[in-house]
Amino acid sequence: MAGELEPLNRTQFAIGAGPGALYPEVQTALARPVWLDSDPQFQAAYEAINEKATAALRSANPALILQSEAILGIEAAAASLIGKTDVVLNLASGPYGKGFGYWAARYCGELLEIETPYDEAIDPAAVLELFAQRPDIKVVSVVHHETPLGIINPVGEIGRIVRDHDAFLIVDAVSSFAGMDIHPEDAKADIFIAGPGKCLGGSAGLTVMSVSERAWAHIDANPAAPFASILSLKDWRHAHLAEKPFPFHPLISEVFGLEAALDRYQSEGPEKVWARHARTALACRRGAQAMGLKLWPKDEAIASPTLTALRLPEGLDAVSLVGEMRRRYGVTLSCGDGDLAGKIMRIGHMGPTAEPMYSVIALAALGAALRSQGHMVDVGAGLEAALAVADAVSSK
Amino acid sequence: MAGELEPLNRTQFAIGAGPGALYPEVQTALARPVWLDSDPQFQAAYEAINEKATAALRSANPALILQSEAILGIEAAAASLIGKTDVVLNLASGPYGKGFGYWAARYCGELLEIETPYDEAIDPAAVLELFAQRPDIKVVSVVHHETPLGIINPVGEIGRIVRDHDAFLIVDAVSSFAGMDIHPEDAKADIFIAGPGKCLGGSAGLTVMSVSERAWAHIDANPAAPFASILSLKDWRHAHLAEKPFPFHPLISEVFGLEAALDRYQSEGPEKVWARHARTALACRRGAQAMGLKLWPKDEAIASPTLTALRLPEGLDAVSLVGEMRRRYGVTLSCGDGDLAGKIMRIGHMGPTAEPMYSVIALAALGAALRSQGHMVDVGAGLEAALAVADAVSSK
Amino acid sequence: MAGELEPLNRTQFAIGAGPGALYPEVQTALARPVWLDSDPQFQAAYEAINEKATAALRSANPALILQSEAILGIEAAAASLIGKTDVVLNLASGPYGKGFGYWAARYCGELLEIETPYDEAIDPAAVLELFAQRPDIKVVSVVHHETPLGIINPVGEIGRIVRDHDAFLIVDAVSSFAGMDIHPEDAKADIFIAGPGKCLGGSAGLTVMSVSERAWAHIDANPAAPFASILSLKDWRHAHLAEKPFPFHPLISEVFGLEAALDRYQSEGPEKVWARHARTALACRRGAQAMGLKLWPKDEAIASPTLTALRLPEGLDAVSLVGEMRRRYGVTLSCGDGDLAGKIMRIGHMGPTAEPMYSVIALAALGAALRSQGHMVDVGAGLEAALAVADAVSSK
Amino acid sequence: MAGELEPLNRTQFAIGAGPGALYPEVQTALARPVWLDSDPQFQAAYEAINEKATAALRSANPALILQSEAILGIEAAAASLIGKTDVVLNLASGPYGKGFGYWAARYCGELLEIETPYDEAIDPAAVLELFAQRPDIKVVSVVHHETPLGIINPVGEIGRIVRDHDAFLIVDAVSSFAGMDIHPEDAKADIFIAGPGKCLGGSAGLTVMSVSERAWAHIDANPAAPFASILSLKDWRHAHLAEKPFPFHPLISEVFGLEAALDRYQSEGPEKVWARHARTALACRRGAQAMGLKLWPKDEAIASPTLTALRLPEGLDAVSLVGEMRRRYGVTLSCGDGDLAGKIMRIGHMGPTAEPMYSVIALAALGAALRSQGHMVDVGAGLEAALAVADAVSSK
Repeated sequence: MAGELEPLNRTQFAIGAGPGALYPEVQTALARPVWLDSDPQFQAAYEAINEKATAALRSANPALILQSEAILGIEAAAASLIGKTDVVLNLASGPYGKGFGYWAARYCGELLEIETPYDEAIDPAAVLELFAQRPDIKVVSVVHHETPLGIINPVGEIGRIVRDHDAFLIVDAVSSFAGMDIHPEDAKADIFIAGPGKCLGGSAGLTVMSVSERAWAHIDANPAAPFASILSLKDWRHAHLAEKPFPFHPLISEVFGLEAALDRYQSEGPEKVWARHARTALACRRGAQAMGLKLWPKDEAIASPTLTALRLPEGLDAVSLVGEMRRRYGVTLSCGDGDLAGKIMRIGHMGPTAEPMYSVIALAALGAALRSQGHMVDVGAGLEAALAVADAVSSK
Repeated sequence: MAGELEPLNRTQFAIGAGPGALYPEVQTALARPVWLDSDPQFQAAYEAINEKATAALRSANPALILQSEAILGIEAAAASLIGKTDVVLNLASGPYGKGFGYWAARYCGELLEIETPYDEAIDPAAVLELFAQRPDIKVVSVVHHETPLGIINPVGEIGRIVRDHDAFLIVDAVSSFAGMDIHPEDAKADIFIAGPGKCLGGSAGLTVMSVSERAWAHIDANPAAPFASILSLKDWRHAHLAEKPFPFHPLISEVFGLEAALDRYQSEGPEKVWARHARTALACRRGAQAMGLKLWPKDEAIASPTLTALRLPEGLDAVSLVGEMRRRYGVTLSCGDGDLAGKIMRIGHMGPTAEPMYSVIALAALGAALRSQGHMVDVGAGLEAALAVADAVSSK
Repeated sequence: MAGELEPLNRTQFAIGAGPGALYPEVQTALARPVWLDSDPQFQAAYEAINEKATAALRSANPALILQSEAILGIEAAAASLIGKTDVVLNLASGPYGKGFGYWAARYCGELLEIETPYDEAIDPAAVLELFAQRPDIKVVSVVHHETPLGIINPVGEIGRIVRDHDAFLIVDAVSSFAGMDIHPEDAKADIFIAGPGKCLGGSAGLTVMSVSERAWAHIDANPAAPFASILSLKDWRHAHLAEKPFPFHPLISEVFGLEAALDRYQSEGPEKVWARHARTALACRRGAQAMGLKLWPKDEAIASPTLTALRLPEGLDAVSLVGEMRRRYGVTLSCGDGDLAGKIMRIGHMGPTAEPMYSVIALAALGAALRSQGHMVDVGAGLEAALAVADAVSSK
Repeated sequence: MAGELEPLNRTQFAIGAGPGALYPEVQTALARPVWLDSDPQFQAAYEAINEKATAALRSANPALILQSEAILGIEAAAASLIGKTDVVLNLASGPYGKGFGYWAARYCGELLEIETPYDEAIDPAAVLELFAQRPDIKVVSVVHHETPLGIINPVGEIGRIVRDHDAFLIVDAVSSFAGMDIHPEDAKADIFIAGPGKCLGGSAGLTVMSVSERAWAHIDANPAAPFASILSLKDWRHAHLAEKPFPFHPLISEVFGLEAALDRYQSEGPEKVWARHARTALACRRGAQAMGLKLWPKDEAIASPTLTALRLPEGLDAVSLVGEMRRRYGVTLSCGDGDLAGKIMRIGHMGPTAEPMYSVIALAALGAALRSQGHMVDVGAGLEAALAVADAVSSK
């Protein structure tokens, strides 16, 4: 039976690193009829939706929406903000941080990096120290949540240091925004990149970002900043205003999906949403630990509330584990890529899956799959521990 | 009452230049639950959908899907195929053709252009002649359907000339593919760019393109060709294979929407779909002429079967006309931008709106709006003429 | 080609007597996930939706929802209200009125009827006169809008007469409610039957009705009134209260569809919705007359704002006309059944199709189909006249 | 916090007695545009869908679709088949069986009943014995799956006895059909009632039934059989034929939902679907037993594969348990009504929830809720046992 494909819609529990499950409100919004984007009614709707994005970002600057998945916003931020002579400090806390380094190198004058082991977060003291040596650092880039590792970097402290040194900060908050208390201003971010496809539980086809006034000034002064390009921030800067034409076609169904995700977020209440994510992650960590598994992050204090990364016991085939979970239970988790292949298993807590029961589901499937490979874990104890977290909260 | 916004969903008849109306099958496909893109089931589904795109393109090479609206494919084609020393001949048959020139200039060694008046198509003889003078032309670019003008360029003849001179041809067929008989091989196109958002009646958030083997070789030999970028063709070249990882996240809901559009296209039958587009356009042209309006194209033979561009009488306010049509009838058409503002009105015949009755609707609304600005047209005669086209076909 | 079936979704313009086109909000509401009906959250939602129905009915009594199309409400009303000794006066103004007579006869002591020719409305004076002769009439039944005829009966006047004589009035307002200014209290109706599937633009699978306190007393006193039955009004009387169990399973998706239709109705504003229906019907009548067709109702003053019934010229095959319209234009209208077969053609103006452009579409298709059968009509003049109505309103 | 309502869409896991979760294919089918039911295309579609229902029933007679939830089919069967002089034997195996007795009594000459304790199934020997005493029994009625009890009655044996005695058999298979191997012919049922809302995972608003030729003859000979009524089987007997008009409006969106459910059933394969239900139920039973809970059925051999009924420990408040599960985990199960209130808790395995993981989810939530009321259960052991069932199957 192994290797045989189940019907597509067998997967009922997509509990991975996302983009993943959509809220039902988003699914139905995607099914709405579309308008011509030149229709003044659509332009008015787009402006209103942009304002909702701004409100969710709690930003003084209007949100900036780009027309593909949030990775576009990250690449476009590098291309737009980083000038040819700029010294860039890239905080390479993991695969995503390293990845940004490749982009930064493409555009900058000089690239500095602080690397951390993959199971640790960036130490703000190291940033402060490097600024002391290199006061010419112009742009600092950091990934708030290293999705491949489930680790949260201290962007609040980093942001204060960067601002104190009058540099620009780019924050990739794609997989943390809307799942915890993080907004552009909290990190003094000049460019803050998020998307609807992770903790907002929306459709992933857009970037939602915030750009500070001072970042716009730096971009305007950068002769190499893209324009008339999908990589351009400038093209879309004012496009949300109803009276302005769109530079290119916006993705209308995705825009409707974004609106539904933002409405849901505000309607439930951001603080409640964050608490739901935190509770689910705690249940997952306690459950995994009780099963006998180890967290990937060296210190639980840096573990993300939006994704739990577990250290796989040695000698297991992670891809085969994922296949077993899918085949037996219709559950899909995310494993690791590259250097992390075979070492890590990741359980997402994002949007609709940020419910303690999804941690129970994920751990149940993972435990059974581990045992199928001969690695004995105490699934019963694990699920008890996960439930106990939710129960403790509920009984308050 | 003017200026007051009607409820958003008042617009029932979006009959413009697209992206516009979706087939119902596409709307419901967008509402499907999503999978993790790392899920082997999704990867298998993606491969199957890519094969459906290949089949629709009638291409020997696998289709290439990029993750934003088709304009991405056009920019990415320029960035990837055009090397720094390449001589490019851009056939600037209208605003879109000219637009490509800006991109080509960004990447090429030397840019040559053949311009035509905005109401004419490219003359293949001129292309042949220029090749005689400049046998070093390496890349030729042409827009098959100049959407702002409703004009079809003779890409078949152009393609033969280009191939005879061993150059590469880029064809933008975004708003003609699937609305008429045009495929990469018909134009001997090395890069052929289409998208689901026009005549396929799909959701617009993807590019669907075809790249020839020789184009891939040229791209591989181009050191400036983007990689690890949203502008990269190379990143996605093999991504459709189930066993290959995706370079970045695909837009899953859009992919499902594309599948529904492709299924619908094959299920109705491409030849029938094209005939439906042609019939609708003919009804529109006959109706407009009987109303006393003039086609924008100098010669009806170059008028597109997927969009009818009409020459507006002088002294009218096109934006206000569009507003009137919307307010009175819930109809939205497309007017012209830039140099064409106030001169042109465009009625789309794409996917679901490629039905003769939509030409009746569009002309009825346009006629009434024209009269509201004091321009008397014979609406009754126009609608009679439009109906007569459909009736003549039906009575066969 | 005749006889060959087009793909199902070819019909883009269902402009008949309904149930017909759904508002997009309703379509997406139908796609929502469902809950167990025993879930307290669903019970609370149901109570809120029932309140929205009550508000739309502008009734002091809570709305009563039954779990099938509105015909169920009509049959259930007869079965519940009419006792074995009751004298019933049925106002047989057309096929639907006559139909109710069959049901009344099943349950009553004696059945009296006032019949009118099929092209006239009930004359209240006749009702008054009959009451003078038969003061023992206990229940009067009337169809507000005879959907097969497009005729509106004067239920306001009739209601006053019935109430003055202390009898009970049953009003079938299925195809007029929400398309014009009619509510239970306007007709002093004791049982008032509507449904979401006509002018509310909702899904048709429910009955929405209002029952007066005095009607409930009569039902309670009727030993033959159904209970523990789909025909029972009593079973569902209090079922809308969150703390009461449902007697049988409610149709959850339909309930969500009803909510969306009610929300849309209130959001647009009932008065605006009625005006839209009236404007569309007027455009249809003026257009049809200008084409040379005759209204079915003897007097235009009794023509319904929610459906226009036209008198077909003799010698035409109505079913074939409908087929032609569908085949040529994807338009479906309703023809007549039984005695009316071949004599009548009906164009609905209900919910989403209550837009003047739909009258243009319907008349264009009808005109072309008529000519295909050799009956020459002036389609151009007809469409001009229909447009003129909308234009006159718009230019105010 | 207790008593506070969570947002409606908080309930992610509706694992009760149904109607419950819909397959995604059904949700999107409900969102499709509708047609006029007089449209020949819709009539052709309806005939095709009826054939699909016939195929799922594996019946020689065309399926009969009625236009409300399956309870309508049961009431209509009683009203149509049972004549005023008929002796009816009602097999009152539980609340649903008893319920049918009330309906049978309304229509029959004499009502005989065999009652069983609520935790046992009907004994075919008792049926045989009663036939020996009363050879004049004309109609026998039995509920295949007593949904309130989770007990399966042996309809195959009963059916043979009934047919041997030349009586008619009515089988209510609403909550077993499509979840196990049961079809009209398996039970020699003359009327077999099912619906899309349970194991087909469809929308619940229709009845799908099968009526034998001999039953039709008995109905035709029954002067009291309803006609021109929602309770009439006769009205709809031939309505599925494209050339026949519908007696009343069919519920179009529900019909599309039915089609999607039937397509899914055949596409997965009935035998695989049944196995999935059986596996899920077995996991549920083993898990519950390991937690220390008792099955409601006296003998596990009669436990339903489509729903597991558990015997609640004494002294617990079942409604409050359900509330706790919902509040803590977004899980809703079904408790008991009437005599069964406080005694029983029911976990559905129907359609989409017939996946072993749903048994894990249900038991996890139930265990935590039980403990919140001071009833200690070994949740860890329970979930381990449930997982072991799925794992045993998977490792084969």
